Amino acid sequence: MLLDDTPLFEPSLLTELDWESCKVGFSPPISPSQPGEGLLLRPLCTADFNRGYYKVLSQLTVAGDVTPEQFMKNFEHMKRTGDYYIIVVEDTQLGQIVATATLILEHKFIHSCAKRGRVEEVVVSSTCRGKQLGKLLVSTLTLLSKKLQCYKITLECSPHNVEFYKKFGYTASDESYMQCRFFE
Amino acid sequence: MLLDDTPLFEPSLLTELDWESCKVGFSPPISPSQPGEGLLLRPLCTADFNRGYYKVLSQLTVAGDVTPEQFMKNFEHMKRTGDYYIIVVEDTQLGQIVATATLILEHKFIHSCAKRGRVEEVVVSSTCRGKQLGKLLVSTLTLLSKKLQCYKITLECSPHNVEFYKKFGYTASDESYMQCRFFE
Repeated sequence: MLLDDTPLFEPSLLTELDWESCKVGFSPPISPSQPGEGLLLRPLCTADFNRGYYKVLSQLTVAGDVTPEQFMKNFEHMKRTGDYYIIVVEDTQLGQIVATATLILEHKFIHSCAKRGRVEEVVVSSTCRGKQLGKLLVSTLTLLSKKLQCYKITLECSPHNVEFYKKFGYTASDESYMQCRFFE
Repeated sequence: MLLDDTPLFEPSLLTELDWESCKVGFSPPISPSQPGEGLLLRPLCTADFNRGYYKVLSQLTVAGDVTPEQFMKNFEHMKRTGDYYIIVVEDTQLGQIVATATLILEHKFIHSCAKRGRVEEVVVSSTCRGKQLGKLLVSTLTLLSKKLQCYKITLECSPHNVEFYKKFGYTASDESYMQCRFFE
């Protein structure tokens, strides 16, 4: 196995989004097809391992040490399920990933075998702030989940990000979010 | 395709749990292998479609109308991914499902390609309350997620269930849980 540019999912899903229905405004206007000068928004591929994908993730949390083999194995599993939609923004001049976000589909028996979306790992590199990339990533994944016929999409965020996510149509739930941690 | 007793996942995973490390007490003592008189705890199978699985789900939320074909298709997808662990309790005398809960594994690139568990759709039939089945289901899935090497397991619940889940080692998170609903 070699690291290559095979996308995690069909790239046309991103260009065919109903961007007009996007709930937030962008100034200057950007979109998945036009994310900004020198930037490219696309699905993750294994070659991104050598384009600083982990460096970006480490700005969010403990990314950990991973070999190319582990990375590819995880990627292959995600691709095989068809339920993982990880998008990245690449600085095409530097050949470096500068932002990423993940949408995961969860299959249900309830709601007539519905699908639910989950937004995870939204991070924009500190070197690339102020370019509306966070807004672009969240808008893109929210519209994508609708296109993929999710009945709802959810996420967990820091309290100080609640107002940010409200812009996209999310509301704070009455439900409590609980966790049980086995190790770091 | 026919509805049958093929389990969604390897049943021995349930009998080989480290039940001694269970954080909650049961009185009388029950376990995944001994869930109570006339009861059987096991993985979901497609034949459960005709054993009232949806009737139980409908006590939790809108279960919806589903054909056996849709049910099997969803089941097959879940089984193929290897990431869905749906357990049921069957009343073996009646041949009816009386309780169910779901553990889903989510694959990550962070934390050195870690896995995270999610508990979903915990429901005990109103005809079967008072038999510690809720406690049994949550204990079982929490221990199973640890056995499957999840670094953490999370869930969302009503505020009035927070104390219940604390018994198993869950803590209420500082994070906010947000959702965007496209349709019911």
